[in-house]
Amino acid sequence: MRYGYFDNEKREYVIDRIDVPVSWTNYIGVKDLCGVFNHTAGGYLFYKTPEYHRISRFRPNGVPMDRPGHYVYIRDDGGCNSAGRGKAAGGDYWSLSWQPVGKGPGGAGYICRHGLSYIKYQCGYSGIQGEQKLFIPVDDPVELWDIKLKNNSGRKRELSVFGYLEFSYHHIDMDNKNFQMSLYSCGSSCEDGIIEFDPFYESGGEQFFTFAGTYADDYDCLRDKFIGPYRSENNPVAVEQGYCSMSSELGGNHCGALRKSVSLEDGEEIRLVFVLGEGNRAAGEKFREKYSDFKTIDGSFAALVEFWDRKLGKLRVDTPSEAMNTMLNIWNLYQAEINVMFSRFASFIEVGGRTGLGYRDTAQDAMCVPHSNPEKCRSRITELLKGLTGTGYGLHLFQSEWFEERRSPPFKSPTVVPMPDRKSFVHGLEDTCADDALWLVPAVTEYIKETGDLGFAEEVYSYADGGSGTVYEHLTKILDFSASQVGAHGVCKGLRADWNDCLNLGGGESAMVSFLHHWALLHFAGLAERLDRAGDAENYRALAEKVRGVCERELWDGRWYCRGITSSGRKIGTTANEEGKVFMESNTWAVLSGAASRERGLSAMDAVDEYLYTPYGLKLCSPAYSRPDDEIGFVTRVYKGLKENAAIFSHPNPWAWAAEAILGRGGRAVKFYDALCPCLQNDKADIRESEPYSYCQFIVGPDHSAFGRARHPFMTGSAGWSYFAATRYILGIRPGYDSLCVDPCIPENWKGFKAGRVWRGALYEIDVENPGGVSKGAASCALNGKPLAVKDALALIPAQSSGSRNHVRVVMG
Amino acid sequence: MRYGYFDNEKREYVIDRIDVPVSWTNYIGVKDLCGVFNHTAGGYLFYKTPEYHRISRFRPNGVPMDRPGHYVYIRDDGGCNSAGRGKAAGGDYWSLSWQPVGKGPGGAGYICRHGLSYIKYQCGYSGIQGEQKLFIPVDDPVELWDIKLKNNSGRKRELSVFGYLEFSYHHIDMDNKNFQMSLYSCGSSCEDGIIEFDPFYESGGEQFFTFAGTYADDYDCLRDKFIGPYRSENNPVAVEQGYCSMSSELGGNHCGALRKSVSLEDGEEIRLVFVLGEGNRAAGEKFREKYSDFKTIDGSFAALVEFWDRKLGKLRVDTPSEAMNTMLNIWNLYQAEINVMFSRFASFIEVGGRTGLGYRDTAQDAMCVPHSNPEKCRSRITELLKGLTGTGYGLHLFQSEWFEERRSPPFKSPTVVPMPDRKSFVHGLEDTCADDALWLVPAVTEYIKETGDLGFAEEVYSYADGGSGTVYEHLTKILDFSASQVGAHGVCKGLRADWNDCLNLGGGESAMVSFLHHWALLHFAGLAERLDRAGDAENYRALAEKVRGVCERELWDGRWYCRGITSSGRKIGTTANEEGKVFMESNTWAVLSGAASRERGLSAMDAVDEYLYTPYGLKLCSPAYSRPDDEIGFVTRVYKGLKENAAIFSHPNPWAWAAEAILGRGGRAVKFYDALCPCLQNDKADIRESEPYSYCQFIVGPDHSAFGRARHPFMTGSAGWSYFAATRYILGIRPGYDSLCVDPCIPENWKGFKAGRVWRGALYEIDVENPGGVSKGAASCALNGKPLAVKDALALIPAQSSGSRNHVRVVMG
Repeated sequence: MRYGYFDNEKREYVIDRIDVPVSWTNYIGVKDLCGVFNHTAGGYLFYKTPEYHRISRFRPNGVPMDRPGHYVYIRDDGGCNSAGRGKAAGGDYWSLSWQPVGKGPGGAGYICRHGLSYIKYQCGYSGIQGEQKLFIPVDDPVELWDIKLKNNSGRKRELSVFGYLEFSYHHIDMDNKNFQMSLYSCGSSCEDGIIEFDPFYESGGEQFFTFAGTYADDYDCLRDKFIGPYRSENNPVAVEQGYCSMSSELGGNHCGALRKSVSLEDGEEIRLVFVLGEGNRAAGEKFREKYSDFKTIDGSFAALVEFWDRKLGKLRVDTPSEAMNTMLNIWNLYQAEINVMFSRFASFIEVGGRTGLGYRDTAQDAMCVPHSNPEKCRSRITELLKGLTGTGYGLHLFQSEWFEERRSPPFKSPTVVPMPDRKSFVHGLEDTCADDALWLVPAVTEYIKETGDLGFAEEVYSYADGGSGTVYEHLTKILDFSASQVGAHGVCKGLRADWNDCLNLGGGESAMVSFLHHWALLHFAGLAERLDRAGDAENYRALAEKVRGVCERELWDGRWYCRGITSSGRKIGTTANEEGKVFMESNTWAVLSGAASRERGLSAMDAVDEYLYTPYGLKLCSPAYSRPDDEIGFVTRVYKGLKENAAIFSHPNPWAWAAEAILGRGGRAVKFYDALCPCLQNDKADIRESEPYSYCQFIVGPDHSAFGRARHPFMTGSAGWSYFAATRYILGIRPGYDSLCVDPCIPENWKGFKAGRVWRGALYEIDVENPGGVSKGAASCALNGKPLAVKDALALIPAQSSGSRNHVRVVMG
Repeated sequence: MRYGYFDNEKREYVIDRIDVPVSWTNYIGVKDLCGVFNHTAGGYLFYKTPEYHRISRFRPNGVPMDRPGHYVYIRDDGGCNSAGRGKAAGGDYWSLSWQPVGKGPGGAGYICRHGLSYIKYQCGYSGIQGEQKLFIPVDDPVELWDIKLKNNSGRKRELSVFGYLEFSYHHIDMDNKNFQMSLYSCGSSCEDGIIEFDPFYESGGEQFFTFAGTYADDYDCLRDKFIGPYRSENNPVAVEQGYCSMSSELGGNHCGALRKSVSLEDGEEIRLVFVLGEGNRAAGEKFREKYSDFKTIDGSFAALVEFWDRKLGKLRVDTPSEAMNTMLNIWNLYQAEINVMFSRFASFIEVGGRTGLGYRDTAQDAMCVPHSNPEKCRSRITELLKGLTGTGYGLHLFQSEWFEERRSPPFKSPTVVPMPDRKSFVHGLEDTCADDALWLVPAVTEYIKETGDLGFAEEVYSYADGGSGTVYEHLTKILDFSASQVGAHGVCKGLRADWNDCLNLGGGESAMVSFLHHWALLHFAGLAERLDRAGDAENYRALAEKVRGVCERELWDGRWYCRGITSSGRKIGTTANEEGKVFMESNTWAVLSGAASRERGLSAMDAVDEYLYTPYGLKLCSPAYSRPDDEIGFVTRVYKGLKENAAIFSHPNPWAWAAEAILGRGGRAVKFYDALCPCLQNDKADIRESEPYSYCQFIVGPDHSAFGRARHPFMTGSAGWSYFAATRYILGIRPGYDSLCVDPCIPENWKGFKAGRVWRGALYEIDVENPGGVSKGAASCALNGKPLAVKDALALIPAQSSGSRNHVRVVMG
């Protein structure tokens, strides 16, 4: 069953059956002001941080579902004008987004169009065609609610238009639990047509809500006055009665509610724009004026479209797979960018109480999109450099502000919460995840390869626990730390956890971490070579070789690689195990890291296919655990088929695509790709439940009654990795320090593909041809018509001058 | 306007106009299982701790208001039996509590009766008289929903009865913000008619939900199946369709929903009981059986009534003030007991994210009701003793478990939260509140006076930061700490805050703390004397005299006592101040502590009356602050008329009653008493908004547009102090180490009053007569007919033997 379709021309996903099973979300805002909203305008807005500067309130996982939001209500005022308040013959009302009023059987007549950083809610009801478009201009901290109403009813209509949102106390934790604070320190007022929400005890921090270029007829600043007692957003008393009550107060629950009467002749269309912004009333006046001209609004929207054009233009692909084109050219890069922009703590699942940067997540996110967002990737990397301890491990979850010049608050909150000092931020080895910092090594090298900024390696950054060093030195500390943290068999220790949060091996050993260590060592050695540090390159290559030797000696289990060794010496992920026999991480990383021999790699990935493949993607492990075993970890306390316990955990799926591509099995790589591909599940949306335009954190595995159900869209490491693995391994377009490599591994039945890649300012229009129906390997290569030598079946294109436009032809065979 | 009335015979408050302005709450459970519910069955249940073992989920400050709850839905199944599901001619449904379905215009026909640890929801709708009684037996961890339905409709009726609650992840913080945890680690199932909710990854911790003595026809364990998509508790799909869908799952949002068809002849009454309990399915079977007999249920309820009989029987008063009788004999003691039982973090305002013990609050709560709950007061006191540092200051907010033998969890949660070590629990001086530990001194002495347990002083307890000492030694450390923490004028420093959280004087000085120090010193000196430690008694009396001297020299401002001195030497609370001229705390405590001369005391309390009196009680200070002044504190950043900034903050109001009683002005003491008295605001409930049977934390002051609106019922220091001041100062019945003092201070027009007091097992039936129309002072006193000498106009009754029944006659004059 489907609820909508991809409109790739407009880069929109169109939900035309609005009663989707769970919230289908999208993100707006690309700089400081950001919002997360669902298919019915439920959601919230924040400024810079969803934890400390939440603007609109949200009740996640609630009943009713996922409310409130940024709602526009329309009321039929009958033949009456506003002077005849409450006496109108009309009185019917609806919302432009289907919810909260919920008119129409099953939402018939309601449509949601999720675009890139904007959302359109459209409906036809009562003869009125309506649209609410939400977006945030690239450079202004304002959210525009661009409303269009067209009267198709065949008669003149008098309508009231209400805009409504509920303000939040900025600090989300206070808003959730300390009502003694949240209810008495914020106030609201409406003057000159502009509602101002004022966090009184702060200096600044106000928000405003106004119409653009016009004035409201009436307003409410108090939520409980707008909604009315024992009511909800379904049926606010103000909407029912047809006017707001001009409420405001110092203290209480605040909202922005503005109403305007409009009159529409038959066939007439009007446009009204609400402006919700960061800033006080004076800022509101400025933006009310600025956006009073519809041309300015249209110009702002065009600039937003252009913003995404530029990003998406860095790599465009045209492959025989329509699904892959849809994902890589639009939705997958979008999702990966959202992760880098928003970090991981603004969604309907992560609702702000936890924030900061997860070390491994941030590193991987930044590794994957340096081409489309080099500035943000760089700033994320520098945040992580500062979150690295001098010992070489990263802080698992930290606030980057901790390591900035601390601005002490002007006063102390009356709610006494002992404030941890800097020292207590730095956790010890017992809270260290063994993989965290290793991801930073490829993130740095990929950034340098993309940008050519070799000087970055020499920049100096502080360590979390004091002292400082160059980026290059930071990386050596990471690699040395992992070299020192090995267990009885010489394999890296599992510590608190490795990438798999629920595998808690402690002093036991993790195959995945050793393989990842190997990968990071090779990345680093490449950088050292390029920086002419031959001694380092040699030493770290030698270390890599040593790690490889340990892995091959200790971790091979006959048909695949085991997952690790517990602290008491039990091997897990082996043929001898009844549960947790085969794991994704160890087998994909054995290949991906370059540590496994080709023979063993093929065997290991065959086991992945045999034991872990499902039509919804690859399971993390199999069979599921059913008995608690705390030496293995929390994974044994998770229900079968959920999350890490044999669900289709999305993040590692692309590792398998990359591994198969390295092994040259393009058919299988794309089989795995397709299984996980969200847009290919569009017609199974009743089973999948979640957005078909977003990778989800996991899909419930076959051991569970809800097999195939996807959960946790957008904020997942599968976003970046899907993009990374598909573009760099399947399509094989990889920047190096001095050349662009084109090394595809595709299904034999692909006749080839095209791609346009902008790298260091030069455009490469790439034609890959596969006349012989092979999977991998370049037979010949030409740059701008001139043949280039092909070595080891790799096409390596030397970097061309910025601004140049180049044609690359690669013939496989 | 009124919404209900006091039914003192039944000890119930009856809400007969159900659409009260805000939730009117009540507490059930007197031991480990506890619940907070409002007038429409919205609320939640927890076991031992509202933070770590929440049982039912609650969405506070929400829209719709304060949901969900423990709801019973009734559906009219028409002429059909359950075999004809969905085809019934009926289909109308309602809830026995008005909300969530909300039938009846304004809730007409719905009644809520709040009793002591039980609640009855009653309604007449559709010819069916229904009642849902919620209570928790004294000794079983089960909540009973005792349902009665009577058919008054004149025809036979087929009904479906649904019981519904939503389960919560136990750890409330996870439940609020980490859905990755809360949605995947709990499961539910229904077998043998019993729903079991299982926090899978924990060992144990299950809850069950069942009918007592019978079986459900069908069930739902999944909230979203019971409610249905895009619906709410208003209109669950299961209720609408007339049956549950037998849903359950491992992971997800869970509920207990049980349905049973019943058939009622005209005039027939049936009774059905739901049992919600702590424990697994086996426990459910046991309790289903145990409570299958209505006699057992009635017996349990009678035992609960008896439980409160015993407590209330410790002191009964019969005064000319009906309001005072209502409060002291029922609601005020009930509220004070609730505070001691539940601590301060289970309400609709404090919803569990903050827990633990506030030092000063707990100490004062325990000080006030040792007569009715000596066991719990003692255990609270010992918790506080362990939360005292060896330096002599208390930990402002702490978990008593911190200082118990730590049971390490069997496994580590996958959500990495750095775990602070014990050392980091112990905050430094910068987070110390200057008053916190001083309150423990009178709490200990009052406990000993009540119980006669002098040995308690010699018991040994640990200090929070290591080491240990006797209770007596703990108290000396507290007093010595305050003696050492004095500022430039010799007055105690304000530190982080004193009792007034929003007065943050730091190194500046606090009049209130020095007065409180004086009070505590006298309490301690009395104890030392009684323990024959004459030297200590002398030393600490000398110290008290020194403190008194400093106070009288430095703090007198000509007409009243100033509130303090800022760190730069500015006096606050003086005639010279334009804002914050007169404060409650310094002036009431000058008198209450015994430090002020009578002359100055009279003048100071006249200023309190002149500047602070309002018909809703006494303001905390006046005039309100309007400009931020961080040297004074956060109070200057609170809106005028709210909370500490010139609201009628309830907690210090009783200090004024006590002060006036000490000064002998009974008329004014009772004028102040009456102003704050909740039950006297019953007819102003539209203005007060909150429960008229509970003191509230504050009432909005005259500087604010919502003057008279009360907020934060139950969990407030005014509960204990109102009881303490009214009984010990106005009625003047105070236990000493060896005698019971009767020292009333009443209005001149009171002809006297009667009281029954149980003290150390003996009953004292006290008759106070006031033939001369005085306010204070005993002229004569007789015990069991024999005259006793009266010294200093005080009647001192020597302790009589346990079990004895004594008559005391005190004639004022």
